[in-house]
Amino acid sequence: MDTELVEMLKQTGAVKFGDFTLSSGRKSTYYVDKYIFETNPVCLSVIGDRIAKLIPAGTRRLAGIEIGSIPLAAVASVKSGMPFVVVRKATKGYGTNKLIEGVWQKGEKVFVVEDVVTTARGALGAIHTLREAGLAVDEMVCVVDREEGGRESLEQEGVKVRSLVKSSELLGYKP
Amino acid sequence: MDTELVEMLKQTGAVKFGDFTLSSGRKSTYYVDKYIFETNPVCLSVIGDRIAKLIPAGTRRLAGIEIGSIPLAAVASVKSGMPFVVVRKATKGYGTNKLIEGVWQKGEKVFVVEDVVTTARGALGAIHTLREAGLAVDEMVCVVDREEGGRESLEQEGVKVRSLVKSSELLGYKP
Repeated sequence: MDTELVEMLKQTGAVKFGDFTLSSGRKSTYYVDKYIFETNPVCLSVIGDRIAKLIPAGTRRLAGIEIGSIPLAAVASVKSGMPFVVVRKATKGYGTNKLIEGVWQKGEKVFVVEDVVTTARGALGAIHTLREAGLAVDEMVCVVDREEGGRESLEQEGVKVRSLVKSSELLGYKP
Repeated sequence: MDTELVEMLKQTGAVKFGDFTLSSGRKSTYYVDKYIFETNPVCLSVIGDRIAKLIPAGTRRLAGIEIGSIPLAAVASVKSGMPFVVVRKATKGYGTNKLIEGVWQKGEKVFVVEDVVTTARGALGAIHTLREAGLAVDEMVCVVDREEGGRESLEQEGVKVRSLVKSSELLGYKP
């Protein structure tokens, strides 16, 4: 367990208790507000370092997912020197009108960066977008794994998941 | 003129020539693709340093605007130790359902970070959101000022604009 990061995430106040509807539509008695931990520069810097150290050999780019994991990918990029792309949920409708922003070549290996994985719907959507564009995705990292089936869904799609912290470590009990 | 940054932006290939429709709907013969310069870690790092040095006294937070300037605010935040918020264009419809993500208090002074200013519609929208929430905004920075009236519109709203680079410097002529 990464005790330093667990404590840091808790101290930012990112873990909230109450009645929440998650992006998946699921109800939950706790919510990990990624924007609270990732807008804290000390915490964001530590996360960026952690992610930079996990970048697998052969990776050519990181990928941040609109919008929550963009700060994570940006800081990990600067920390590692590894360029990144931004994966949109939908095109803008003007300008270059792309689903993947940044510079990339077909066939490149991309390491996906995600903030919180619950059902992994967001990550899976981005991975499909990247793969449909001809990019190779077989590994990803998330800051928090809520341990609610997302990892398994990703593994079924051939994506190995690294998590910096699990919800049970954050909460001190299995949710 | 910041020759180092001008050259760096050009070398990333972010300045494209052709027929473009900008987010404002205006037609243009050139397009500065922010995602190309800000997903380049060396360039992003230099921009983060530049922004960190411009943070006015009394600032309590930076603000990144969905989604283009989020990487800039994130890296400037880590470089400066100044926390940031993310200003959305619209609420998510689930979870905490906010227009301003992150931690903030009414009355705090916020330094807005923007990627490219043309008409400043994006920046003005974010500034209105921040001000309506009770935050104080009177200064901002952008990486590129396209010199097409955006600065003036912002100044009319009492916002002092710092730009790292002007389009005329990037292009070598006044567009």
